[in-house]
Amino acid sequence: MLGMFGVRACSGMLGFRTVTHVRTLQSFPGITVAQIDEEVAKLLELKARLGGDDGKHQFVLKTAKGTRDYSPKQMAIREKVFNIIINCFKRHGAETIDTPVFELKETLTGKYGEDSKLIYDLKDQGGELLSLRYDLTVPFARYLAMHKITNIKRYHIAKVYRRDNPAMTRGRYREFYQCDFDIAGQYDAMIPDAECLKIVHEILSELDLGDFYIKVNDRRILDGMFAVCGVPDDKFRTICSTVDKLDKVPWEDVKKEMVNEKGLSEEAADQIGAYVSMQGGTDLAERLLQDHKLSQSKQACAGLSDIKLLFSYLQLFQVTDKVVFDLSLARGLDYYTGVIYEAVLTQAGVAPVTSEAQNGPMAEESVSVGSVAGGGRYDGLVGMFDPKGRKVPCVGVSIGIERIFSIMEQKAVASAQKVRTTEVQVMVASAQKNLLEERLKLVTELWNAGIKAEVMHKKNPKLLSQLQHCEESGIPLVAILGEQELKDGVVKLRVVATREEVDISRADLIGEIRRRT
Amino acid sequence: MLGMFGVRACSGMLGFRTVTHVRTLQSFPGITVAQIDEEVAKLLELKARLGGDDGKHQFVLKTAKGTRDYSPKQMAIREKVFNIIINCFKRHGAETIDTPVFELKETLTGKYGEDSKLIYDLKDQGGELLSLRYDLTVPFARYLAMHKITNIKRYHIAKVYRRDNPAMTRGRYREFYQCDFDIAGQYDAMIPDAECLKIVHEILSELDLGDFYIKVNDRRILDGMFAVCGVPDDKFRTICSTVDKLDKVPWEDVKKEMVNEKGLSEEAADQIGAYVSMQGGTDLAERLLQDHKLSQSKQACAGLSDIKLLFSYLQLFQVTDKVVFDLSLARGLDYYTGVIYEAVLTQAGVAPVTSEAQNGPMAEESVSVGSVAGGGRYDGLVGMFDPKGRKVPCVGVSIGIERIFSIMEQKAVASAQKVRTTEVQVMVASAQKNLLEERLKLVTELWNAGIKAEVMHKKNPKLLSQLQHCEESGIPLVAILGEQELKDGVVKLRVVATREEVDISRADLIGEIRRRT
Repeated sequence: MLGMFGVRACSGMLGFRTVTHVRTLQSFPGITVAQIDEEVAKLLELKARLGGDDGKHQFVLKTAKGTRDYSPKQMAIREKVFNIIINCFKRHGAETIDTPVFELKETLTGKYGEDSKLIYDLKDQGGELLSLRYDLTVPFARYLAMHKITNIKRYHIAKVYRRDNPAMTRGRYREFYQCDFDIAGQYDAMIPDAECLKIVHEILSELDLGDFYIKVNDRRILDGMFAVCGVPDDKFRTICSTVDKLDKVPWEDVKKEMVNEKGLSEEAADQIGAYVSMQGGTDLAERLLQDHKLSQSKQACAGLSDIKLLFSYLQLFQVTDKVVFDLSLARGLDYYTGVIYEAVLTQAGVAPVTSEAQNGPMAEESVSVGSVAGGGRYDGLVGMFDPKGRKVPCVGVSIGIERIFSIMEQKAVASAQKVRTTEVQVMVASAQKNLLEERLKLVTELWNAGIKAEVMHKKNPKLLSQLQHCEESGIPLVAILGEQELKDGVVKLRVVATREEVDISRADLIGEIRRRT
Repeated sequence: MLGMFGVRACSGMLGFRTVTHVRTLQSFPGITVAQIDEEVAKLLELKARLGGDDGKHQFVLKTAKGTRDYSPKQMAIREKVFNIIINCFKRHGAETIDTPVFELKETLTGKYGEDSKLIYDLKDQGGELLSLRYDLTVPFARYLAMHKITNIKRYHIAKVYRRDNPAMTRGRYREFYQCDFDIAGQYDAMIPDAECLKIVHEILSELDLGDFYIKVNDRRILDGMFAVCGVPDDKFRTICSTVDKLDKVPWEDVKKEMVNEKGLSEEAADQIGAYVSMQGGTDLAERLLQDHKLSQSKQACAGLSDIKLLFSYLQLFQVTDKVVFDLSLARGLDYYTGVIYEAVLTQAGVAPVTSEAQNGPMAEESVSVGSVAGGGRYDGLVGMFDPKGRKVPCVGVSIGIERIFSIMEQKAVASAQKVRTTEVQVMVASAQKNLLEERLKLVTELWNAGIKAEVMHKKNPKLLSQLQHCEESGIPLVAILGEQELKDGVVKLRVVATREEVDISRADLIGEIRRRT
């Protein structure tokens, strides 16, 4: 069995390509370990396809394309980010739920438009046809309809799956976390919508990712705008998708796509162009309500009035400083019916997104440089699942947690600050041989008292290697046992940072460790 | 689109069957909601297969077979259980990692013996062949080999997938959590193994599930025993699987399987029978080391010496009260190479496992009435992934978390204690109309101060419905605003439980809420 796992050194043409590739990397100063890993994985995959030089099957030691392991350091950062986000959700009174990683295939059918091709299907092994979840919103709507829940404020943090072209160095994976907060229920207009924006504001402020702003718009304003600009009804969604590209490509290119690819008249495109360049606050909504053309659309007026109402609540929530009414915001997904929003980081220090990354079908996630949250109102989705079509109005937000992980990891590297991966308070060590039993007795006392403690799994470890382990993993204290200490009924407590040592009586040890950590 | 999701009332023969079925349930006093849900799901699935009365395709509103949603109440219990377990892992200095939900198919190939047929494969949509993880141990071994890690103490809590016959009312699912703690590295014998048992002891004690004991054995003792009893080498694993059934079926049946199905001689079977009836402590290991037959096996002697050493460490860890050396313990998985163990709940209050549940291929999970943890040493698994076959010794334990969830849920129902699903400290309410703005201002103050607070998303909610919401979701305090309070610069703070009300000045409100919650 072992033989088949052998990975041999590269040879022939493949070897040559590896070498030139590495040269390219060396001449590129900002290269990261993750990028190298990604390249190595690609080459190993290629090698496996080539079949090796003896034609035998080669086992490739890797994770599936577009996925990654999380190391303890990454997990420590992930835990920190999750804690901030979950605390915010809990502060706002949210419950949490969980749903299975796969759903019946037909539960997902017809919910994602042309992105459906990115859904992972399970093999038909007899029984039901299943697919991995593509987001958390559709399972949430299925959950509400199935359990007949008409109002809930819930968060859900879980992984979702998209067969997209991964760009892992830019934080884009085939398996990635979504971190969703939604309010379902029949409430008065814009109050839950405003709370979602308040939550985005709180989370991005607490995560301390640098300056940000939140764009808001409304699907009804977009649809009204399309109508008054002369877009045929059946082209609303496809023109909307084109508008969605405005944060990545200049207006000229968007216009070209509208006219050349989508068959819109140049006049209609120009009229849209005038509207989507507008940004402002409640004043802009006010002005557009007076706009002779747009005000002819009832839909647009309803959307504009709600934007005004939304801003009045945002004022009370003290978050208007970061919110911009932006008519170019369109968002990718079909199911939005009202307010939509998206939070964007404005600061440097964010990994640059190249043009290559911007054209993928994952536009939802990589909408713009530094997009870290997005969402909106979707009042029709639950009704698609309910046997009687009963609607449950919903509004929600999804935090782009993978990008936030990437930024936090970069910050951790940049700050050169040590990321602790355990919370151990004290290491039980010995300076002499034959003290394993005494070490195990002492560490048992500490564990039983709830102290986080470690002991080396060796009979006679060297004191130096025990101290080195503390330095490496950031353990602040060492409880050292020796013949003399045992005779005197004390433990030598050493502070790793200062090397200060003090004898503590056995009875006082637990209290002393608690005091010092 | 809505039409196709219509679920019509049952009719004809199916309707009749439903009715009789419900009658049966009514006459059964111990029936649970989960059981009813399971039955309903079965019927709906059947109905979908029948195609409905008009022959049209029927959308079935359900989760995939063998999976379930977690409600907020279940999540609250799950969070409590996880916290206890994670705290224990952290107390022992464990780091955590995460791996993708799917692996390359060949990563899982050849690791699970005949249980491989239970692996979920993904559909070949072009690209790599993938499978959902079956456990966390094989991905962990792949992780160690791939990242060249030779020592780590890690925990991993994640869902795994098995295409088994679900028995959901008994806590057996196709998607279920595993909760693994493992120590990888070259250490002195039995020290990490003993720490794993200490951890099981701590977790089961803290979870307060009733009395339990932990059976231990060693694969080398089993193999040595098979050798001296005359089992042919190539039948060790299959006879071991038969021994594994001893906690569910009487010896006579096990013997029959050995002789009739596996072709063992009656004499050999009887000799095995004598050994596997033995239970004891370090004294039994001592006695068996003197056993004229068993002591002829070097392997058995190595295992017996290690059992003695293990007990000496367990003594220091103060856990021997719960540990039994049991020669009938075999465990299902192929990859164990040394010590194996399994924790069993002895108390009533555990959901009874009927014979139907015990014969499924999920024997690993349902090994006996009340088995809640299991594990052992697997020194060969990492070497199966390493290109050069380098071994990394490993020992670990998996906590049977789904069964623990079931027990905790039953306990919560039995105690009739209210499970809170949010941590909200205070509800901001108003007694009069037109105070939405004031409520939003106040709740913003509270959120900004880190208080967990809720406000109704209605312009003019009734005071009664605001108070009812507090009663239902266990919110302890209500901050009530009215015209008079606003004039006086105070807030009426109401204690929901006692209905006591007291005016608090606006400036003191946050401090007062913190003091009271």
